[in-house]
Amino acid sequence: MPQTFVIAQGGGPTAVINQTMVGAALEARRRHPGCRVLGARFGVRGIRDGDYVDLSLQPEDALLRIAATPSAALGSTRDKPDAAYCELILQGLREVDADAFIYIGGNDTSGTQAILRDAAGSSIAFVHAPKTIDNDLVDNDHTPGFISAGEFVASAFLSVDLDFRALPGIYCGIVMGRHAGFLTAASAAWRLDDESGPHLIYVPERAFERARFVDDIKRTMARHGRCIVALSEGITSPSGKSLVEELTTHDRLEYDAHGNVKLSGTDLAHAIEHILAEDLKGKRARVDTFGYLPRGNIGMINEVDAREAFEAGRFAIEVAAQGGGSVALQEQGGETVLRKVPLENVAGKTRHMPADFLQPDENQLSENGYHYLARLLPRRYEPGMPFV
Amino acid sequence: MPQTFVIAQGGGPTAVINQTMVGAALEARRRHPGCRVLGARFGVRGIRDGDYVDLSLQPEDALLRIAATPSAALGSTRDKPDAAYCELILQGLREVDADAFIYIGGNDTSGTQAILRDAAGSSIAFVHAPKTIDNDLVDNDHTPGFISAGEFVASAFLSVDLDFRALPGIYCGIVMGRHAGFLTAASAAWRLDDESGPHLIYVPERAFERARFVDDIKRTMARHGRCIVALSEGITSPSGKSLVEELTTHDRLEYDAHGNVKLSGTDLAHAIEHILAEDLKGKRARVDTFGYLPRGNIGMINEVDAREAFEAGRFAIEVAAQGGGSVALQEQGGETVLRKVPLENVAGKTRHMPADFLQPDENQLSENGYHYLARLLPRRYEPGMPFV
Repeated sequence: MPQTFVIAQGGGPTAVINQTMVGAALEARRRHPGCRVLGARFGVRGIRDGDYVDLSLQPEDALLRIAATPSAALGSTRDKPDAAYCELILQGLREVDADAFIYIGGNDTSGTQAILRDAAGSSIAFVHAPKTIDNDLVDNDHTPGFISAGEFVASAFLSVDLDFRALPGIYCGIVMGRHAGFLTAASAAWRLDDESGPHLIYVPERAFERARFVDDIKRTMARHGRCIVALSEGITSPSGKSLVEELTTHDRLEYDAHGNVKLSGTDLAHAIEHILAEDLKGKRARVDTFGYLPRGNIGMINEVDAREAFEAGRFAIEVAAQGGGSVALQEQGGETVLRKVPLENVAGKTRHMPADFLQPDENQLSENGYHYLARLLPRRYEPGMPFV
Repeated sequence: MPQTFVIAQGGGPTAVINQTMVGAALEARRRHPGCRVLGARFGVRGIRDGDYVDLSLQPEDALLRIAATPSAALGSTRDKPDAAYCELILQGLREVDADAFIYIGGNDTSGTQAILRDAAGSSIAFVHAPKTIDNDLVDNDHTPGFISAGEFVASAFLSVDLDFRALPGIYCGIVMGRHAGFLTAASAAWRLDDESGPHLIYVPERAFERARFVDDIKRTMARHGRCIVALSEGITSPSGKSLVEELTTHDRLEYDAHGNVKLSGTDLAHAIEHILAEDLKGKRARVDTFGYLPRGNIGMINEVDAREAFEAGRFAIEVAAQGGGSVALQEQGGETVLRKVPLENVAGKTRHMPADFLQPDENQLSENGYHYLARLLPRRYEPGMPFV
């Protein structure tokens, strides 16, 4: 009987998650001629509901075009299956005689795989392939999707800094990131010199204090005549609460099914605008929410990111042959290598940005932070220096 | 005595305003060997204060690198000179023996030139060279800066639509534009098919009604399972007030020196989120403010836009030789041609998006709208179609 591979995509889309899906599908077809490759629509929902696209039947050139397209072509889901839901997924996998299930996603997705594996016994290989713009997977040097998103953020902040050299003022750009600050830190990867923005970086890993924030901006304005700020959506107050929760009027707060406050860039933007209007009166200020813009822009897909994502998908088929596990991107001598790591190393855990990526006494990248980002996000543009 | 050209940049920066500045500087040097080309820092402020960079001394390759850099390399200003300020500018121009003053900007900038010309008499040639992402200059088919900004917006909405095919919900992207909807309409230039977002477009030229907005979204959700919305910052209520003014609590409103309410994308985003939370309860919704991101992104500078901006700068020197006026980009047989038009045709006026660019009964582009945008913004990407 031919082998059957089930592939699904979970969590927030990225610029290159389709590379991983297509890499896995084509590698399965190459190594196992005649195999079935079923793409489940909308993540594990498709398995539960028997809703598949047969990737075995897709022409290779059509798949390669999909690979180069951002967002999850199979659809995605944010479902976190409970025990009963897991049983339905396992039933679904058995109904199609699945030999392996490859689930592409972040730490929630790998958590689902660990639970399914424990519930299923050993008949099916459960594989997690990494994907997240947050770059927050344990055991990974970086994750597919981060480089493209990081380039968007680096390019945007380089450009906004040039804009504010021409018309000085305060700019705050709010960048996705609930628990990890990597993507927000990428804002500083392409600073031109010590005078360049972003001048201040606020990430979830370091408590945000209003008085300190206002002082930081005042000092930067005095020094450079402008102030460019990058803030993570998930920045927290010293009490550990998300800033949105702390600053938003309570009738506006929304909670998800898990009781987590819904992080809205808009609420944070509004709160930040309020702080600037109160404490920095009369200064020209602008707050923008990048939101979904960096995570899958068709105009900014990084080639290294795309290639690594494709190779991670191919390697997932090797991990399936080895009985399952999580595909990890690790660093060795400056090169990215793929390794198999246990699902439980990644499942449900968050890799925070190391504290030493920021300067101890300033909200700016440290040498370590620059070094890490320069390896992943080498500067792509060398603009001429303005005359002001 | 050698000729002296003064060049300045006004208003919001764009991706290609430096092309125009460098085009003018190099053309002046080519046509008038030995001439002086003075770049005024921060617009007319630099003339008032005698603050110049000598562009005659800059090596050509350095200037060409500046040309390829977004934002205004000389600095810019939003000053609207009154009679006394104008007198100081004229004094400044006379102090450097200016033969021509080329001011690159939008309708406010051309307005300044018209006032200066009337006050100066005929000794100096006053030239306006066009620039604005708003695309709202009378007598112009389109304006330098619009194509690059439009591509950013088109690419972003194409990408966000792919994102929401994978994880359905409501998305509102708020795009700059106080009086003209061209840039917001560009969101639909790269729709893949009738099913694609943005599904709804709201521009300043058509009154925004909350009930209609909510109905539009409900109908789109029923039809497509997702709803992608593009809104201009300057959308107005049926009473003619800006929506920000209508919807924002009054202690939060800010006014500029002219008594205009300060348009903040964040305030509008907050108001829109509020509408969605109240009238479309339980739907996944996200609102982002694009803000300054489209107007000068170093990663998305369109080559046609860059070339046209450079040629507009060169042509400004010809217009100076003819005694002054405004450079206009006009269309002739599908090609862009440069013409001289009177300053007063452009000065202080707004070209609105024609009403027939939208369908009469739907907030979507009409054939006319698509036709216009397709000429300026041919689709750059052909993504694979998702499986969902």
